[in-house]
Amino acid sequence: MSEVPSMQKTKMIIKKNDKFIKIAESLKPKLIKDKVYPKQIVDVIRDKDAIHGWKVVKVSEIDTIKKEAYGKSDSFILDFGDHEVGYLTIKVRPVGSPPDAPLRLKLSFGEMPVEVKEPFSEYKGWISSSWLQEEVINVDILPAELKLPRRYSFRYLKVEVVDTSQKYKVSFDEIYCTTVTSADVSKVKKLPETLDKELQIIDKISIKTLQDCMQDVFEDGPKRDRRLWIGDLRLQAAANYKTFKNYDLVKRCLYLFAGVTNENGQVSACIFTEPEPIPDDTFLYDYSLFFVDILYNYYKASKDIKVIKDLWPTAVRQIEIALERLDENNIVKDDETWWAFIDWNEKLNKQAPAQAVLIYCMKRALALAEELNLKEKDFLKKKIDEISEAAVKHLYDKEQGFFVSGKEKSVSWAAQVWMVLAEVLPKEKKCRVNGKII
Amino acid sequence: MSEVPSMQKTKMIIKKNDKFIKIAESLKPKLIKDKVYPKQIVDVIRDKDAIHGWKVVKVSEIDTIKKEAYGKSDSFILDFGDHEVGYLTIKVRPVGSPPDAPLRLKLSFGEMPVEVKEPFSEYKGWISSSWLQEEVINVDILPAELKLPRRYSFRYLKVEVVDTSQKYKVSFDEIYCTTVTSADVSKVKKLPETLDKELQIIDKISIKTLQDCMQDVFEDGPKRDRRLWIGDLRLQAAANYKTFKNYDLVKRCLYLFAGVTNENGQVSACIFTEPEPIPDDTFLYDYSLFFVDILYNYYKASKDIKVIKDLWPTAVRQIEIALERLDENNIVKDDETWWAFIDWNEKLNKQAPAQAVLIYCMKRALALAEELNLKEKDFLKKKIDEISEAAVKHLYDKEQGFFVSGKEKSVSWAAQVWMVLAEVLPKEKKCRVNGKII
Repeated sequence: MSEVPSMQKTKMIIKKNDKFIKIAESLKPKLIKDKVYPKQIVDVIRDKDAIHGWKVVKVSEIDTIKKEAYGKSDSFILDFGDHEVGYLTIKVRPVGSPPDAPLRLKLSFGEMPVEVKEPFSEYKGWISSSWLQEEVINVDILPAELKLPRRYSFRYLKVEVVDTSQKYKVSFDEIYCTTVTSADVSKVKKLPETLDKELQIIDKISIKTLQDCMQDVFEDGPKRDRRLWIGDLRLQAAANYKTFKNYDLVKRCLYLFAGVTNENGQVSACIFTEPEPIPDDTFLYDYSLFFVDILYNYYKASKDIKVIKDLWPTAVRQIEIALERLDENNIVKDDETWWAFIDWNEKLNKQAPAQAVLIYCMKRALALAEELNLKEKDFLKKKIDEISEAAVKHLYDKEQGFFVSGKEKSVSWAAQVWMVLAEVLPKEKKCRVNGKII
Repeated sequence: MSEVPSMQKTKMIIKKNDKFIKIAESLKPKLIKDKVYPKQIVDVIRDKDAIHGWKVVKVSEIDTIKKEAYGKSDSFILDFGDHEVGYLTIKVRPVGSPPDAPLRLKLSFGEMPVEVKEPFSEYKGWISSSWLQEEVINVDILPAELKLPRRYSFRYLKVEVVDTSQKYKVSFDEIYCTTVTSADVSKVKKLPETLDKELQIIDKISIKTLQDCMQDVFEDGPKRDRRLWIGDLRLQAAANYKTFKNYDLVKRCLYLFAGVTNENGQVSACIFTEPEPIPDDTFLYDYSLFFVDILYNYYKASKDIKVIKDLWPTAVRQIEIALERLDENNIVKDDETWWAFIDWNEKLNKQAPAQAVLIYCMKRALALAEELNLKEKDFLKKKIDEISEAAVKHLYDKEQGFFVSGKEKSVSWAAQVWMVLAEVLPKEKKCRVNGKII
């Protein structure tokens, strides 16, 4: 258990805002669907130079699965040509005598070649093995059109015929994926063709990744977790404004976070949307504050004043809660628990970067308050000054030219970067990061 | 492959009688349903004196599954108290944090204790392993009411929690089986209480077995095969007339057999009913003839003259086809293939018992023809005499006092029993079976 970050709190009371949840539900996107067929039949072979040690090689054309008859222990691997997120349909037909026993199929879905080659049963990590995309299906009546009810995230699909009977085999008339996304690709502006090729490829893959994560909400990842985490939402929403421009999806997510908080009004780090919106019992200092930044960016992109009117109190509440953690020196109190995320690095001390995130998000709140002339603007201005001053006084080590964090006065990238983003030092007092003046 | 009886013929043309199939469909029974809850939680332990070496012992009350929280690798075995055929419902609820990973369950259904204890993966027999009643289920949204779509036949259910996550476990509010049958238990007459206890128990188990096999059709068995075999139907229908009296179910099965024959008009040994009626490509000498016997018994029990009018030509056709196999001595031609069933014993020669089955079924046809004054009666009478005479002349060994069969002139129980049932020897010429005069 020691390697598992402890995120679990006991019993919590959920404060539910029915109006907000209703708005969030009304914004549930109608998913865009597409039918994607596998491109070829492949094998995955050992290659020490390939990623994870496995290389993909073509074996035959895709229509082989229609012509060939597969019996007990036969299998094949399909390559869909690209990463896909969606639902699988399999049209399977008996060959030989009428099927006198059920058909048993095993399906393994892989984003990477390794996943369809190394058996999942050998997985021993701390993340739940139930995320491994594997199904065993029993089919009593043939021919059949199997529409698998679960969503998968994959490029490679291994189909194993566990058993038929001595009297029949099976062929596959069609196997396809009905992809789903709430991202409209037609809204993405093309990059100039003169741009560097590598940048173009990076851009393409980034956009596809975002597209695959855009479902009913912005998902952490479409394969594992599949949940709305506020840290992921912040970056995804920002990328979305420059690409798919699905403002409603961001709006929906903001209302979900504001719609179910703990009894203190703090937004959770993560929301479960099924069977009904439930906040995770994980609350993180920086994640709750990010609500303010996401709201700010949403307003800048959409100019949707109605949303600010609804959600401004939730944003202010996150700042109030964050301020309660300041000590007598106006510095965020540190502790040993998993109170702030910042980064997965277990050795990272969170104090200084958390202080910077607080300042960063308060400055976003102030910008909104000033633009919309909200009553909190003076309070915010005053507090930002105090906390920034405290950060420089207590956390900045002039000799090293770095911000230090926690009892051990550790120096981290995260602290420097966030302090720079929060513009804590005046422009003339540059901050050294990675030995350079930035 | 050598140990597998070769039942498979290549391409066959199906002769379909739409009228008969329509009548069969109209007789599809509305299944009687019941909710059966497990009685206790048990363990299955080694005991060399118990059947298959496994004994069942009680572990705890059934409501434990509601109170206990089960995580990765936890499992329990439910005992439903009796053999059940039906559909499983599982109401499962998360305990702990909101479920941040799917729940993966493995279910193993056993009619006998051994099935929930010895892993199916070790099965190496020639019967398809897909009959082993095992499911792996992934549940993305909790709490859930899982209604498994397949029908199972079991008394014991092993539930294994393959994985949840570090943040939650599960409890089971309810697990039950919705049993199905087309047998109405209320129609069964009670045995006199004075009857021998052992006979009462045998009767109870026999009736339950028949009940579990009575579904859309009379099934071979409710766990494996699940199909309408004419050899099983013959005995099941006879038992049904004395118990559940579901005449329509027998009628339906008769119309199914007559509704899809081969192009020669021969009824198949077995019918597949889904996705539409299809005759199996297995045709057996004795099984096709049994159509006549089943029709005779159905008429005797139901007095349903309409069915005889429809199906008499099919019955006559089976006799005509059977007669075509007689040699110049009026003896059924023997061969090495799987042309007649009679019994699973591989060493059994089928010639003499097949001759007896022919005579037996022709006598049933004659009885019908005489009672209803059908035109075939004279022909049948004449032929029965000829073939019976031939049986005595060529197959009866006076010295041994036994009927002999095939080139090797083998003596079998099956030949003697069927010859007795067919009343081939005149009453004064008794036949010795098992050393006794019967």
